[in-house]
Amino acid sequence: MNKNRLLQLLMAHRDRPVSGQEISDELQVSRTAVWKQIEELRKNGYEIEAASRRGYRLVRFPDRVGTEEIMLHLTTERLGCSIIYNDTVTSTQEIVREQAEKGGVEGLIAVANEQVEGRGRLGRSWQSSPEQGIWMSLLLRPQVPPRYAPQLTLLSAVALAEALDGYLPEPTAIKWPNDIRIHKRKLAGILTEMQADMDEVQTVIVGMGINVNQADGDFTGELAEKAASIRQYAGVRQSRPQIIASILKSYESWYNEYLTNGFGAVKAAWSNKTDTLGSFIQVETSRQTVEGTALCITDEGALQVQKTDGSIQTVHSGEILDGPPPE
Amino acid sequence: MNKNRLLQLLMAHRDRPVSGQEISDELQVSRTAVWKQIEELRKNGYEIEAASRRGYRLVRFPDRVGTEEIMLHLTTERLGCSIIYNDTVTSTQEIVREQAEKGGVEGLIAVANEQVEGRGRLGRSWQSSPEQGIWMSLLLRPQVPPRYAPQLTLLSAVALAEALDGYLPEPTAIKWPNDIRIHKRKLAGILTEMQADMDEVQTVIVGMGINVNQADGDFTGELAEKAASIRQYAGVRQSRPQIIASILKSYESWYNEYLTNGFGAVKAAWSNKTDTLGSFIQVETSRQTVEGTALCITDEGALQVQKTDGSIQTVHSGEILDGPPPE
Repeated sequence: MNKNRLLQLLMAHRDRPVSGQEISDELQVSRTAVWKQIEELRKNGYEIEAASRRGYRLVRFPDRVGTEEIMLHLTTERLGCSIIYNDTVTSTQEIVREQAEKGGVEGLIAVANEQVEGRGRLGRSWQSSPEQGIWMSLLLRPQVPPRYAPQLTLLSAVALAEALDGYLPEPTAIKWPNDIRIHKRKLAGILTEMQADMDEVQTVIVGMGINVNQADGDFTGELAEKAASIRQYAGVRQSRPQIIASILKSYESWYNEYLTNGFGAVKAAWSNKTDTLGSFIQVETSRQTVEGTALCITDEGALQVQKTDGSIQTVHSGEILDGPPPE
Repeated sequence: MNKNRLLQLLMAHRDRPVSGQEISDELQVSRTAVWKQIEELRKNGYEIEAASRRGYRLVRFPDRVGTEEIMLHLTTERLGCSIIYNDTVTSTQEIVREQAEKGGVEGLIAVANEQVEGRGRLGRSWQSSPEQGIWMSLLLRPQVPPRYAPQLTLLSAVALAEALDGYLPEPTAIKWPNDIRIHKRKLAGILTEMQADMDEVQTVIVGMGINVNQADGDFTGELAEKAASIRQYAGVRQSRPQIIASILKSYESWYNEYLTNGFGAVKAAWSNKTDTLGSFIQVETSRQTVEGTALCITDEGALQVQKTDGSIQTVHSGEILDGPPPE
C-alpha cells in the first residue's frame, strides 16, 4: 500500500472520520493493512484519531519538512517538482548550487530542518535553528540578462510576503530590498544569488529563511528585539510543509506573471507592500550613508532617495538602518 | 638539481653559450649532473645547442603550456600565482569554476592544451584544437556590485589586445564587446562569467581563447574567412607560454588600475582600441536587430547606437553582424 494514497484520503476527509472499510475499499487493501499503515503514520508523527465504528481522522501533521510532507500540500506545476530534504545541511543554497552545476531543473528546491552555516545578505550569518523555521532554496533558470536579476529579488519579497500573510492576523510589510517584517520585526529574509555570463543569467538561486514556530524566549540577544516568528503573531504553531506549499504557489504565480508580462505588476505590488517608500531613511552603502526620503524603486530594483538638499540619489545596494529618524 | 634553476640560467644567457663549468659552479652540482639535466630538458622539448669548449645555449622552448614553462616567463605578482595545467579538459572555465567553489585564490589560472567542450559567448561552441592556441581561464574576486561586472569584460578585451599587439606587425582592434580581431578576422575571444549575489560579486571567471600557431589550412569551413592566428600575421610560430605571461602581465596592470581608480582609463583605452565606434552597424539582440551608427559605450559597457531616425538606443547585449553595411 502506498502511504501517500492513504494520507491523501485522510486529508480529503479531515472534516469527518473515514471508516477502515471505506479506506480498504478505496485503496483495495485489507483492513489489517490499513491498520498497519495507520500505525506507521503515527510513528512518523501524524496524529490520527480512531473512534470505534466511526473510523480514522487525521488531526495533525508531524512537524517535519520532509519531501513527503511537502508534496502532500503542493498545488504548483513547476516549483517544487523536485524536492531535496536533508535534516542538517551547511546551507540549502549550497545544496542547490551543487544541483544547478549538475543540470538540476528549474523549480527544484532544497529544504532542511537545520542549517549550520546559514547566510544572509552581505555575508551575514543567519540563525537557522532546528525545527522552528523554514530554510529553503529554490532553483530558477530565467532567460534574462544579468542586469535584470535584482528584479527577482523584489519578486521574491512580494511572493513570500503574500504567502505569509495567509498565516497572520495582520499583513506583513517589505523593507527594501527584501526583508519581510511585521511590526518592524523581521519574519523572513531572502538571499538571491546568480550564476551568469555577461549576456545571460544561467541560474538564480533564491534562499529564504522564515521564522515559523519560535516562541518568545527563542530569540536571544539583539534578535529578541529585531526578530519575530509567525507563531508569535498567529498564537499557535504552524505547519511548515503547508507554509512551504503556500510560498511555492504564490511564487509560481508571480514568476509566471513576470516571465509573461515583465516587471510591471511585480514592481507595483512591491511598492504597495513596502513600508520603506515615503519614509525618512538612512541607508548604509559600501561607501557612504545616504539620508533622505525614500521615493520609489527603479526598474532595476534600486532605491531612489531624495536628500534634504532636494537632490535625488539612486542606491543600488545597501542596508536601511533601523531606529527612529533624526529630529 | 632543480631543473628550473638550470632553465633560468640558460634563459638569462640566451645571447651566448654558457659553459658546463659555469653552470656547474653556479648551481653547485657536478658537470655530469649538468649534462644529465640538459638531456632531460631536451627530452622535454627544449632545444639546446651544445658547442664543445663553448657550452650550452637555449635555442627554443618546447611548444608546451605546462605550469613550468609558464612560470619561467611570469613577471606578475598575483595573476598566475597558481597554475593548473591539464593536457585535455572539457573547458578551462569548468576547471576554474570547481576551484572557485573550493576557495581558489584570485589570480589562479587554468590552462589546457586542448578543450573538448570549449564555449564562447551566447552558448556557442569554440574550436580549441590541441597545440595551436591558448585556452585559459582566470579567477578574479573583485569587490564590486554585479552591475559593474560587464566593465571587466571590456577590461579583459583591452588587456588581451595590448598583450597580443606585442607579437604582431600591426595592431589588433576590438569589436564590441570583446572580440580581438586583425583585418576583421577573429584572433581571440573572451567569455566572462560571474557568481554573485545581488549586493556583491563573489567570483568572475575570464575565459580566453587565442589562436596562436594555426597555419592557413587549419581553419576550415566558415572559420577560413573569419578566424586568424598570430602566426599567420607574424610569419613564424610563437611561444605560447611567453604569450600567456605577456597577457597576465598586461591584465594585472589594467586590473590594478581598475581596482584603484575605477573604470575611466579602461573605458578610454577600450574606446581608443575599438573599430566599432563610428561605424554603421547591425546588432542582433535577443529581441530585435538594431541598425545605426555606434556612438560610444556607457559606464556599464553597453553600446549606444544612433538609429537613422536620429533616436539613440542602448544595447546591453548582442552580436554585431559582419558584412558590408547596407547601401
